[in-house]
Amino acid sequence: MAFWGVELKPGKPYLHQYDDERGRLHLSQATLASGKSKEKAVVVCNVSDKNPIYLCSLLPRKMETCSLNIEFEKYDEVTFSVEGPHIIHLSGFFYGEKPDSDGDDYES
Amino acid sequence: MAFWGVELKPGKPYLHQYDDERGRLHLSQATLASGKSKEKAVVVCNVSDKNPIYLCSLLPRKMETCSLNIEFEKYDEVTFSVEGPHIIHLSGFFYGEKPDSDGDDYES
Amino acid sequence: MAFWGVELKPGKPYLHQYDDERGRLHLSQATLASGKSKEKAVVVCNVSDKNPIYLCSLLPRKMETCSLNIEFEKYDEVTFSVEGPHIIHLSGFFYGEKPDSDGDDYES
Amino acid sequence: MAFWGVELKPGKPYLHQYDDERGRLHLSQATLASGKSKEKAVVVCNVSDKNPIYLCSLLPRKMETCSLNIEFEKYDEVTFSVEGPHIIHLSGFFYGEKPDSDGDDYES
Amino acid sequence: MAFWGVELKPGKPYLHQYDDERGRLHLSQATLASGKSKEKAVVVCNVSDKNPIYLCSLLPRKMETCSLNIEFEKYDEVTFSVEGPHIIHLSGFFYGEKPDSDGDDYES
Repeated sequence: MAFWGVELKPGKPYLHQYDDERGRLHLSQATLASGKSKEKAVVVCNVSDKNPIYLCSLLPRKMETCSLNIEFEKYDEVTFSVEGPHIIHLSGFFYGEKPDSDGDDYES
Repeated sequence: MAFWGVELKPGKPYLHQYDDERGRLHLSQATLASGKSKEKAVVVCNVSDKNPIYLCSLLPRKMETCSLNIEFEKYDEVTFSVEGPHIIHLSGFFYGEKPDSDGDDYES
Repeated sequence: MAFWGVELKPGKPYLHQYDDERGRLHLSQATLASGKSKEKAVVVCNVSDKNPIYLCSLLPRKMETCSLNIEFEKYDEVTFSVEGPHIIHLSGFFYGEKPDSDGDDYES
Repeated sequence: MAFWGVELKPGKPYLHQYDDERGRLHLSQATLASGKSKEKAVVVCNVSDKNPIYLCSLLPRKMETCSLNIEFEKYDEVTFSVEGPHIIHLSGFFYGEKPDSDGDDYES
Repeated sequence: MAFWGVELKPGKPYLHQYDDERGRLHLSQATLASGKSKEKAVVVCNVSDKNPIYLCSLLPRKMETCSLNIEFEKYDEVTFSVEGPHIIHLSGFFYGEKPDSDGDDYES
């Protein structure tokens, strides 16, 4: 259940790769982090060779944060990017490798 | 927990069918993906022979994304469609066939 | 985890009764489905002999959908109704009778 | 998983006490239920001897409902109150005493 | 599942440290608690030596509360702070040390 956060910048996609020690990623929140622009900003998700999917759309001064509830497979290769002239912060957490255990067993 | 995403276009319903390898579908998020129109766009869900149900209604420039928390049965035959002049992206994830196991057993 | 959806019309309360085969109800989402009126619409829930409780309030052209996270007991007798000149669609899903099992045991 | 709902009135705090038969409380939703006033209304939570905490803030005609996801301990003594000239309805559900069991064992 | 709440003041970061008796922290909600200012307020999270991450952005008179769903690891050292001229209240709960047990075993 370790915290996870990244800063997504326009033009700089972020590649998330599965890591045995941290476990699967749960994406929980997206928040606008910058910009004078009133244009919207969209979080786009590319998983493996599938089509890009818009996860959320944030609107300056109207709706600058939203909850997400997305989980990724061990073997998903995931790229997050932003469309629009804003930085967006994503946050969430990692499930330990064995979610039903008592938290000690994912410290290898 | 593999990621799932689809692009819903007006007039082109999307049929979701259960698949043993991926497991049950959890629908998490809907996001407006296009359009100059200010009209709202609604995600409609048809399950088997029941009445169509509106899952959410998105408003351009006001509320362009929303969280959902809908799960579908193994044997549900589900069709998603959009009402209104917009493309909508849906996202979510698949539960493995045995959600309480350690993630390895749904790789047949 | 079978999908559940109902259309709530003004003046026509909907009675939900527990059914062993489908299991407990999880109410996930409410969405405005009609109306030119700008008045708000409220989803009201009556459980057994307790006071009516407002579950959510939807505002045309401002907030036409919202997430809920309400669960009902096996022996709750639940009536949903709408206050205001709108049709509202509710959606959610049924937990199988034994949520920790592998999904096969609620097919009698 | 029995339904829980209360009507919070200004000046009339509501005391929630743990009850073995119903189990722990999960607070899920807050909804404005009255008032011509345009002032906001805040749900305040006092737990034992800690400082009062604002759980949510509702805005008439803008955001009249919101989701919460708060759980209370067996031995928490909890008081809910409202700040502002509005009645607010809270809803949620009780976990049975043993959440991992099949639902029969909390009927003493 | 004990309740957790803190008042975050501008310029006064709050350090959260793991405590065996209470278990892991689940952060559920952020709510504006003050201020005449119309400027936005952002909740910032610093975990260990990673970059600061914006968890949410609240807008006076538009969106004064939002849901979060963030969990922290046993060994995360977490600091919350607020950017902007507002007090923000955070709330959530602690998981007991062994979430799958019946609630008695985290009373040492």
